[in-house]
Amino acid sequence: MQMTQGLQRSLQQTPQLTATVFGGRRRSFREFAERVARLAGALQHLDVRPGDRVGILALNSDRYLEVLMATWWAGAVLNPVNIRWSVPEIVYSLDDCDTRLLFVDDRFAPLADAIRASARHAPRLIHLGEEEAPQGMLCHEHLIAHSAPIPDARRADADLACIMYTGGTTGFPKGVIQTHRNLWCGSLQRIAAIPPLRDSVLLHSAPLFHIGALSRAMMQFVSGGTHVIVPGFEASELLRTIERERINELALVPTMIQALIAHPDFGRTDLSSVKRLSYGASPIPPTVLEDMMRALPGVEFFHQYGLTEACPIVSVNPPENHGEQGRALGLSGSAGRAVPGVEVKIVDGGGRELPPGSVGEIVVRGPNITLGYWNKPAETAAALRDGWLHTGDGAWMDEAGHLFVVDRIKDMIVTGGENVYSAEVEGVIGRHPAVAMCAVIGIPHPTWVEAVHAVVVLRPGASLSEDDLRAHCRESIAGYKCPKSVEFRGELPLSGAGKVLKRELRDAHWPARAPTAH
Amino acid sequence: MQMTQGLQRSLQQTPQLTATVFGGRRRSFREFAERVARLAGALQHLDVRPGDRVGILALNSDRYLEVLMATWWAGAVLNPVNIRWSVPEIVYSLDDCDTRLLFVDDRFAPLADAIRASARHAPRLIHLGEEEAPQGMLCHEHLIAHSAPIPDARRADADLACIMYTGGTTGFPKGVIQTHRNLWCGSLQRIAAIPPLRDSVLLHSAPLFHIGALSRAMMQFVSGGTHVIVPGFEASELLRTIERERINELALVPTMIQALIAHPDFGRTDLSSVKRLSYGASPIPPTVLEDMMRALPGVEFFHQYGLTEACPIVSVNPPENHGEQGRALGLSGSAGRAVPGVEVKIVDGGGRELPPGSVGEIVVRGPNITLGYWNKPAETAAALRDGWLHTGDGAWMDEAGHLFVVDRIKDMIVTGGENVYSAEVEGVIGRHPAVAMCAVIGIPHPTWVEAVHAVVVLRPGASLSEDDLRAHCRESIAGYKCPKSVEFRGELPLSGAGKVLKRELRDAHWPARAPTAH
Repeated sequence: MQMTQGLQRSLQQTPQLTATVFGGRRRSFREFAERVARLAGALQHLDVRPGDRVGILALNSDRYLEVLMATWWAGAVLNPVNIRWSVPEIVYSLDDCDTRLLFVDDRFAPLADAIRASARHAPRLIHLGEEEAPQGMLCHEHLIAHSAPIPDARRADADLACIMYTGGTTGFPKGVIQTHRNLWCGSLQRIAAIPPLRDSVLLHSAPLFHIGALSRAMMQFVSGGTHVIVPGFEASELLRTIERERINELALVPTMIQALIAHPDFGRTDLSSVKRLSYGASPIPPTVLEDMMRALPGVEFFHQYGLTEACPIVSVNPPENHGEQGRALGLSGSAGRAVPGVEVKIVDGGGRELPPGSVGEIVVRGPNITLGYWNKPAETAAALRDGWLHTGDGAWMDEAGHLFVVDRIKDMIVTGGENVYSAEVEGVIGRHPAVAMCAVIGIPHPTWVEAVHAVVVLRPGASLSEDDLRAHCRESIAGYKCPKSVEFRGELPLSGAGKVLKRELRDAHWPARAPTAH
Repeated sequence: MQMTQGLQRSLQQTPQLTATVFGGRRRSFREFAERVARLAGALQHLDVRPGDRVGILALNSDRYLEVLMATWWAGAVLNPVNIRWSVPEIVYSLDDCDTRLLFVDDRFAPLADAIRASARHAPRLIHLGEEEAPQGMLCHEHLIAHSAPIPDARRADADLACIMYTGGTTGFPKGVIQTHRNLWCGSLQRIAAIPPLRDSVLLHSAPLFHIGALSRAMMQFVSGGTHVIVPGFEASELLRTIERERINELALVPTMIQALIAHPDFGRTDLSSVKRLSYGASPIPPTVLEDMMRALPGVEFFHQYGLTEACPIVSVNPPENHGEQGRALGLSGSAGRAVPGVEVKIVDGGGRELPPGSVGEIVVRGPNITLGYWNKPAETAAALRDGWLHTGDGAWMDEAGHLFVVDRIKDMIVTGGENVYSAEVEGVIGRHPAVAMCAVIGIPHPTWVEAVHAVVVLRPGASLSEDDLRAHCRESIAGYKCPKSVEFRGELPLSGAGKVLKRELRDAHWPARAPTAH
């Protein structure tokens, strides 16, 4: 169970097939593997040892996938850094798992000095861009050109493959430990639920640092298809690329689907090559899904529910549940059923399994489940109990195992596909001298599905504007975590134990979400 | 990675779906799982502990699959006994891995006394049949009716799941150790190469003790389809069952395909439900394959190459290589390419990888590969070198990873889908007082693909008829291992080191099989 195996297999079976397309640049699997083996040689020469962490902070490109594979080929562990983070968040993740080598592209090279200045061990930097490497950085292309290829280190099974940081409840993100076994089983289990297309040409449009896109890239390597990469989501470029490259598989989050449909070029683009669209990360508004199904007749839609800790797919809602029959049976809004290898149940607060129709927490077990959080034994013990991962997602299950996600037990907000933990945002707001108390919740938003909303109680006599509070937040956390709206109140609803009753705050914004009788 | 997981998943998602059909008997997954949990309770009550071996010696039935799953549910290890063996062979395998509990059906109950009399530990017997259990045996149905269900023991990963005996070169079979991880990865990897049909209804026609059929049953449990079982291969019953049960997946060995086509009912049977036919175990004569493809237009044909030690699939030749294009490219006779997760290469006698087009031994690596042979460290060390399983199969590979099997390096004969090791048969023949020397080889046979052929040198002055020699063999080994033909000679061709030159003997019978230029 080794994440380089798919590449080795492509090298043996389809060396001439196109591995990556990025803009006008195409590389076959033979070229790609040769570059990976050379880049791995360079990493070894730079003293990267098996198990060491290698970071990447970059927009999507073919080189991103080279770094992924070369890191494994050298036996190392990838830390794919969130491109939306502020410098303190970036540095936190580098320091937390001791990442001493970092790939950056042109977009993030300007942050290099700030990162080097504040990291505990200033990381060595490798520049991924097209231009000459900036002062003090090594050059990706130069390393590949001048390094000898090395044999695959063949790390596998329980060996660490990735540390992926996800929003933390304690004010900073947590590093999810992913072994080769986790990612290998996660890939094969997803393939068992969604068989790969023959001659798959997949467009990567979501950011590759994110588990959704990165894991999809891994599955594509396992099944041996072509990767087409765009730097980031931009609707008109996406549409042009689909037409030009005859893309047959799309992986999107709901906000991207909305943007595509709304784009003036949508109706003018030849999308006839598209056979499959998988979406996930957050619930899709029914109207958006229906628009998309109408706009792309004959395309198979798969909804995937998963999380970083599950590497990542837990359940899949297949195409047949998206059609008229699925809608009639109420299954089009389901997160689907557990894929092979994954056990799912709904439990109450005491960990007891609940009967069908009752809302509780989704817990998950299987070979794809993380071993825990890097250096965080308490958080690990809280998330993994008796071998079950507690997802923090509230849901109910029908008599046939279909999951219906209804709430986020951990107070997590999913905005535009990104996870925001309210506790982290609350911590930042609470540090403002004018703030006495605050609560952060997710409220409905037409574009981001949920938006971060802050309810704030000021100190007696203090004053603070919404804009000033946002500027204060922006200094410490990424823009998507900062409140989109702020509500100032005289007090917050509290429980007998003095905890803020968030459900009460939320109920004012959300329609009732209890399951209907089934 | 747990082989009961598929059943658990079916129980959650499709409890009403038909799990097994045997004659007129149908059971849903809910009923099947309930019976499995009760039978596991009975096993526990009979002092079967996690890791203990449970044997089964029976024709195919729905109960065979209950025993398989109940053994795992109780945490035990299945020893599926070859139904073609003689009593000494059966007893050898029971003794070798200390199997103290044995399920037998009506067909094999008559052997019970002989087995009990000669086994080191007379096994406790459970009767699987329809009739009242014979004296001294427990009754399968009674145990299920009167035992309380127990929770799944959840053995997984490196825990032992099966010991499957395969023809031994030292005169007795070797027990191949198969862990839950081996069988789980083997199943998912096959599913990744051959996506399961939706609403799969699979007919088990090959004997379930054999890796081909048993592993296919395991994969069917992983993907959650229906199992239709017939007691054994009988062409007219098979044809009736396909029509009656609307079978959509067939798994056959070449000799069965021939028998089906030759049967007078073939043309009169409605076979329109069949969507897929997978075959393996031995090379298929091109004319048989072509007849079958003509007889079943629109059916997808998959050729699988594998072995017990690989749990079992190594490579798959997909439908597109069976059509006209595949024939034109010379790919219809290929054993296909490595499935995801399996590494394959062709090596010379020194273990060095050979370039495309050169004949050498197939070696294989992956999470599906056995840990070795039970209690046979020397044979294990010979078969597993530097992590690679040496298959004993000679083959060449083209530039795109397609395998072409050309010979059996280990002198193994595959007759009617069964492996026969010449050394075992030679050992038996050599024990006859009239025999001075002998060599056993496989020669072409219209029905069995290969037939066991003995070349015998008698002692001076001794005489022996072909029939007497066969009768002598029949006392010690199964009928399929006994020579179908015997040739008496004055001497055998020997190498300088005194070894019989078998290739010379074979060449007289086989057309040249070297690869053509490619």
